[in-house]
Amino acid sequence: MAIHEECGVFGVYNPAGDCARTTYYGLYALQHRGQEACGIAAVNDRELSSHKDLGLVGDVFTEETLDALNGTMAVGHVRYATTGAGRRENAQPLTLKYVKGTLAVAHNGNLVNTQALRTQFEYRGGIFQTDTDSEIISYAIAQERLRCHSAEEALSRAMKHLRGAYSLVVMSPRKLIAARDPWGFRPLCMGRRGDAVMFASESCALDAVGAKYERELEPGEIVIVEDGTVKSLRENCQDATSNLCVFEYIYFARPDSEIAGQSVHEARVKAGALLAREHPVKADLVIGVPDSGLDAAMGYAAESGIAYGEGLVKNRYIGRTFITPDQRSRENAVRIKLGPLRSQVEGKRVIMVDDSIVRGTTSRQIVSLLREAGATQVHLRVSAPPFISPCYFGTDIPDKKNLIACHHSLEEIQEMIGADSLGFLSVKALSGMIPNAQCGVCDGCFTEQYPIEILK
Amino acid sequence: MAIHEECGVFGVYNPAGDCARTTYYGLYALQHRGQEACGIAAVNDRELSSHKDLGLVGDVFTEETLDALNGTMAVGHVRYATTGAGRRENAQPLTLKYVKGTLAVAHNGNLVNTQALRTQFEYRGGIFQTDTDSEIISYAIAQERLRCHSAEEALSRAMKHLRGAYSLVVMSPRKLIAARDPWGFRPLCMGRRGDAVMFASESCALDAVGAKYERELEPGEIVIVEDGTVKSLRENCQDATSNLCVFEYIYFARPDSEIAGQSVHEARVKAGALLAREHPVKADLVIGVPDSGLDAAMGYAAESGIAYGEGLVKNRYIGRTFITPDQRSRENAVRIKLGPLRSQVEGKRVIMVDDSIVRGTTSRQIVSLLREAGATQVHLRVSAPPFISPCYFGTDIPDKKNLIACHHSLEEIQEMIGADSLGFLSVKALSGMIPNAQCGVCDGCFTEQYPIEILK
Amino acid sequence: MAIHEECGVFGVYNPAGDCARTTYYGLYALQHRGQEACGIAAVNDRELSSHKDLGLVGDVFTEETLDALNGTMAVGHVRYATTGAGRRENAQPLTLKYVKGTLAVAHNGNLVNTQALRTQFEYRGGIFQTDTDSEIISYAIAQERLRCHSAEEALSRAMKHLRGAYSLVVMSPRKLIAARDPWGFRPLCMGRRGDAVMFASESCALDAVGAKYERELEPGEIVIVEDGTVKSLRENCQDATSNLCVFEYIYFARPDSEIAGQSVHEARVKAGALLAREHPVKADLVIGVPDSGLDAAMGYAAESGIAYGEGLVKNRYIGRTFITPDQRSRENAVRIKLGPLRSQVEGKRVIMVDDSIVRGTTSRQIVSLLREAGATQVHLRVSAPPFISPCYFGTDIPDKKNLIACHHSLEEIQEMIGADSLGFLSVKALSGMIPNAQCGVCDGCFTEQYPIEILK
Amino acid sequence: MAIHEECGVFGVYNPAGDCARTTYYGLYALQHRGQEACGIAAVNDRELSSHKDLGLVGDVFTEETLDALNGTMAVGHVRYATTGAGRRENAQPLTLKYVKGTLAVAHNGNLVNTQALRTQFEYRGGIFQTDTDSEIISYAIAQERLRCHSAEEALSRAMKHLRGAYSLVVMSPRKLIAARDPWGFRPLCMGRRGDAVMFASESCALDAVGAKYERELEPGEIVIVEDGTVKSLRENCQDATSNLCVFEYIYFARPDSEIAGQSVHEARVKAGALLAREHPVKADLVIGVPDSGLDAAMGYAAESGIAYGEGLVKNRYIGRTFITPDQRSRENAVRIKLGPLRSQVEGKRVIMVDDSIVRGTTSRQIVSLLREAGATQVHLRVSAPPFISPCYFGTDIPDKKNLIACHHSLEEIQEMIGADSLGFLSVKALSGMIPNAQCGVCDGCFTEQYPIEILK
Repeated sequence: MAIHEECGVFGVYNPAGDCARTTYYGLYALQHRGQEACGIAAVNDRELSSHKDLGLVGDVFTEETLDALNGTMAVGHVRYATTGAGRRENAQPLTLKYVKGTLAVAHNGNLVNTQALRTQFEYRGGIFQTDTDSEIISYAIAQERLRCHSAEEALSRAMKHLRGAYSLVVMSPRKLIAARDPWGFRPLCMGRRGDAVMFASESCALDAVGAKYERELEPGEIVIVEDGTVKSLRENCQDATSNLCVFEYIYFARPDSEIAGQSVHEARVKAGALLAREHPVKADLVIGVPDSGLDAAMGYAAESGIAYGEGLVKNRYIGRTFITPDQRSRENAVRIKLGPLRSQVEGKRVIMVDDSIVRGTTSRQIVSLLREAGATQVHLRVSAPPFISPCYFGTDIPDKKNLIACHHSLEEIQEMIGADSLGFLSVKALSGMIPNAQCGVCDGCFTEQYPIEILK
Repeated sequence: MAIHEECGVFGVYNPAGDCARTTYYGLYALQHRGQEACGIAAVNDRELSSHKDLGLVGDVFTEETLDALNGTMAVGHVRYATTGAGRRENAQPLTLKYVKGTLAVAHNGNLVNTQALRTQFEYRGGIFQTDTDSEIISYAIAQERLRCHSAEEALSRAMKHLRGAYSLVVMSPRKLIAARDPWGFRPLCMGRRGDAVMFASESCALDAVGAKYERELEPGEIVIVEDGTVKSLRENCQDATSNLCVFEYIYFARPDSEIAGQSVHEARVKAGALLAREHPVKADLVIGVPDSGLDAAMGYAAESGIAYGEGLVKNRYIGRTFITPDQRSRENAVRIKLGPLRSQVEGKRVIMVDDSIVRGTTSRQIVSLLREAGATQVHLRVSAPPFISPCYFGTDIPDKKNLIACHHSLEEIQEMIGADSLGFLSVKALSGMIPNAQCGVCDGCFTEQYPIEILK
Repeated sequence: MAIHEECGVFGVYNPAGDCARTTYYGLYALQHRGQEACGIAAVNDRELSSHKDLGLVGDVFTEETLDALNGTMAVGHVRYATTGAGRRENAQPLTLKYVKGTLAVAHNGNLVNTQALRTQFEYRGGIFQTDTDSEIISYAIAQERLRCHSAEEALSRAMKHLRGAYSLVVMSPRKLIAARDPWGFRPLCMGRRGDAVMFASESCALDAVGAKYERELEPGEIVIVEDGTVKSLRENCQDATSNLCVFEYIYFARPDSEIAGQSVHEARVKAGALLAREHPVKADLVIGVPDSGLDAAMGYAAESGIAYGEGLVKNRYIGRTFITPDQRSRENAVRIKLGPLRSQVEGKRVIMVDDSIVRGTTSRQIVSLLREAGATQVHLRVSAPPFISPCYFGTDIPDKKNLIACHHSLEEIQEMIGADSLGFLSVKALSGMIPNAQCGVCDGCFTEQYPIEILK
Repeated sequence: MAIHEECGVFGVYNPAGDCARTTYYGLYALQHRGQEACGIAAVNDRELSSHKDLGLVGDVFTEETLDALNGTMAVGHVRYATTGAGRRENAQPLTLKYVKGTLAVAHNGNLVNTQALRTQFEYRGGIFQTDTDSEIISYAIAQERLRCHSAEEALSRAMKHLRGAYSLVVMSPRKLIAARDPWGFRPLCMGRRGDAVMFASESCALDAVGAKYERELEPGEIVIVEDGTVKSLRENCQDATSNLCVFEYIYFARPDSEIAGQSVHEARVKAGALLAREHPVKADLVIGVPDSGLDAAMGYAAESGIAYGEGLVKNRYIGRTFITPDQRSRENAVRIKLGPLRSQVEGKRVIMVDDSIVRGTTSRQIVSLLREAGATQVHLRVSAPPFISPCYFGTDIPDKKNLIACHHSLEEIQEMIGADSLGFLSVKALSGMIPNAQCGVCDGCFTEQYPIEILK
């Protein structure tokens, strides 16, 4: 699986202090949303300080850096970069000085009118030092702040100009502010632990720090925490719609997160069950491609009545510095990452469940691995529809030219992958997958129909 | 789970070269056996060179260091240190010069007559620069080499003096030699890929590099590879017995490894099934503590007919530099490492399967996490007998004073952990767990009866 | 000596390419002007890329980073930070996107109207991400660029608003632009090597890369290099005066640099000679405090007829990570940094020449070191006048409260230092020190009279 | 100048503790003797611990590592490796366990019967893990210790077998022992500070920590410090001769050191004076190649009556990671390292004094630099005789094939270097250079006559 989320955000207000440390653990829980860079900004006694760098949360922060950031409010960010080698300048939160003091801005999502906004600010003499939307958003806030009376009001006015996906956590020396775009693309939830108020991209981060999940922010909502008082601004909620990225349920979010009332784990199990109904096949064993295919495999097994088992063991130690085998060597990356459970698959007809196919290369290698281990048949079932279009709202689903399903029929794909049969979940099954979700979804990558018109 | 294996070894002869790279991938597959230090020694054109350091395989080696080590034979080692902060001097393979040239020695296990041997060598004027048994073994070989005609003969003679656990891979400029102690404590297997011959602590490392598993070495056997010819010395096999560490099946080995004809995954599933028979209980859901409890949980579920599910999600990013929450903070290490799947466990009677209990602290926290998530009952089932005695043969099972089962009855432990019921696998079930294993086992940590008398 | 220059800049245009590498060597030659951070931005085929970080030039750049920056234009910067631990964000050159594309800005000096300019830009909605004047200057250029037709014109207009010291090297994808403030505080010179045109804070950087020194930029001058054509803008030269920081001659600049026609080495030798005339004393030996006091000591010796010799040897290996001896230890930092040449000073009346006294602590320790080594008398001669006022133009001469000469008479200082006599160079001798300099000087730190009125 | 010393040693006994820190500063003062690796071993309460690594003293040690080593005795080592990339294993002090406990061994010098000793120990079953003579020496001590009653006696007996250069500092849990080979090749001195006793390769290290120089160890002498009592063993002094490496005076030692009663600085000044007598020439200016040629240049100037001046400024920031200009670039390493003082040399006949010529390449580039800077003549004077033979006793003077003077006449060398004249100090002048030295010298690199017969 090669699709990445672009970011995760976390924010905490706690009059008892220690907020940088809480954010550190919150970011640990969100690390799956971005492994390239991370950062924390904290406010202590009205003074903002920050630390950020390329690397994982566990590598970027030490006891010393956390102690230095101690404070009563903090915001944090984990980042995945879609293009090229990550530039350190793009690590977030962005910290800045503007007409009313200092701000820290952490952003998950992707704007679609970046270029227009940037040009507009440049024509007022603005300069840009990063490639991030956070900088655009910061300018928008700073410009509006000249014409209104508070940071939240400035943010509210700025949001009218921002088109696209953004879940934001913003911090001034006095306020912690969270906001979600009016289309509701990316998740953002709120929780509490005693007097502390927290915001996080996913509820798993609240669990990690012992906070109680309270609710998702509404599309378009702004929540302000100031001196322990929480209030909401809903000016931008009026024309809001609800279009949560359905791929959060399928792959991005952690299974122990709940988004808009829907358990992510259950959504995946359900996807597997629906897949079994749509694409049944006679077989002896259902296995998942670890880790993300396991839940759907369990659902497929339960629905089909075919035994569930483990067929592949994932090497837990493959890290960022893994040296991929090159052409000349007979080693093979998939073999190093996944070990087949010969005793399980030998002599069996195996249904292998994965959550998506992008280029098909990895699937082909796994199918081959299973056959070598003795599987007599390998049926590939995919717990999502085929990708036919890129994502403009914060994930790195690639261009059409790199999407196998844009150029090949189901039969061709099956042949390329070497599977005995192949089935994708249907688009119409997606809503059945998330029966408890109190939201609509964006499924543009499967349908080419987006909530916002894309100008190319 | 806090028990660690002390080491993993790998060796390869390949006339086509590229052996350091193959060893690198082999060690990646064995990383679970030791994360403190690692190293590779390679022979190229009769010249031995090596690279080793503290750290994970992926961090210690770069393209450059691997290229510099390129050769037609290589041995590698991953190390876990039981005592104090790891000293760099103890990283292996040990490379040395002796009367007949150079040797590289990689060792998995633990000798029980270390002190006596060391004293004996010191009384001949020897000096010791590390704390490793590898150095003792090297001396033993070097001393015997004065009196015989080949390295393998020297090793064979030396083995008569070595008491304890050792699976060795030794390399001279001309030969790759593997050996296993006559008690057969630690696994060591052999495989081939074309003209290449390989040795590894576990078969998963052979799979990772595309080699075909051939067999385990016999207890006491020495296998020599020289210029592509493989031969065996079985002088030390005569009085050999077979005492494979049973905990390799229960916890240490990777589930996709096969040891002595027995799939590790199947052993764990079977342990779960036996556990269900020995300790049945009415419940709604069986879950495993990830990752090592999952297999047994599946076995328990299948045997008991109770539904299997996931109840805990493991954070995949907790690394060596993770800053553990301290006393003052309200964060909690277990919560950060494991997220409960509320939607799964809520309102249910849960059977939680783990592979062992050492001090009981972690189990107590997990039980509490599940209750918070809504489990109405939590029944703890352990797929191994209680630890009542330490290990002297290469794992860090602690002293009696740190083993909860040495000081508390089953009822006390259950209460301390806060479980609704508690059941351990019986000692007598251990043999049923591994029906296909062509070996005997050492279960001294559960029975206090060891294959070698321990002088304290 | 504890006074630091704040920065050095370098720029090169070379149609033959390899400009990042040339800049690397140029920055090496300017490293004495700033050791905290450094950076290089290069333009290759109209594309700008950059690399910068905390650390010395030799540590920040590798073959790989230099190769990645290869181009036909480059600008570089070395930085010394006056306040707190250096923030990585402040490393330069600043690279930015503005209305007309990209710019890289490297700056040496200090503005005195920073706050006013920043406020003005903030009231237009600007945001600030660093603490550097480079960001202020960039805004000023970006704002003016909206109203004129070229980057150089924008810079020229911006310069009318900038008050203070600035020697700039600015690069757009098409142009390399150098500029000097109309007061002429900081040096900036130009040179050529074949078709290549270069700018550098000091001529020693031109020598280092084999370029021929051509001239200083005039105060207020802007020089533009575009496609090999060099032209000058002198709009801001009309009201320009000439106030080169005299401390560049006394201490900052490298002795092998020439500034405004005056050799720095000769200025220092001359300062020593003038000091000998103003403060003669009977003695046996003249020594300098290495390295910066050596030239003046030679001048003092030659003028006085007293023998010149070495009396102190400097440890060449004291680096950034040197652990300073703490209170409890009997070690002593001066002793570790300077070794006395007992055979030279024993039994002699010694004249010790240093270039300045800030707090007097180090001088006291050196005097004591020389007495221990057997000097019968130690006469301290300082080749600069006493500091009585801070610098606002780019050096870290401290506040009055930290300047010994602000609070103590000559006699008191002599006694505190423990010297047998003490003499400072007079202010009026400063002009005699630099007979060949084709410029006026700023001597505000010695006279409290600055070329620009300082609003406190 | 490309000749390197191989090591420096330091040892301290201080009942008041803090010995690792004192050793740290002592090693800082000896850093010029080896920049590849360093280490400190300390004894605290009879327990030995150590820290060592590749790198400079300032990089290898931190406050934490020093605090962890705190003790009442310590030995330290700085290392320069002559062959290949430095192996970490070779860093010293070597710490080892042997029959009587633990030892730390630090060694400066080079044995000439290494191979014979190693073979002998190997034939007793010994193994070797490093390439250092320290390991050989340790074996020799360990073997003798079996037959006698104390470590010092064992060392004394071992010394009868060691042929070559060795200045040693050895530490057991109870004793600090220093020893010098019976030929007296490498310096080793002793000093005191209150109750503390110290040993160092050079007296500058004693000065650095405020200790008073007491004396050199005699050739063959062993000094033992135990519980504050100092005693000498002189068994090996009977047949001892005195052959201090004359190149210590010419180049290796720090000018502020005194060796055997002779100031190193004065020796160099005197060498310059003798050079002036042997090779006078009409000229306007005498300059030294910094740093090591400066002292001799002063001596040449004083003796000849020609003005002394600075002609070349050395870049103080060229470090280990300096990227040397490659073929394709027009930059030039000498130019980056040395800046010419144009104002000094322009239009002048210059005498340039350097301390040695190995291949002649650097000299040629410097001569050319001076001519470019306007020197009308450049006369090269070398304050040492031509190298005609390698060193076997602890420096890296290369093989004959790399020594220009082995293959070319004086006239040829002069022409290759491009000097107007060339003069070397004569061998017979060497003794005149060190009138105060209470020792004989080894000048084998200039005469091919060594104190010990070299078997090739």
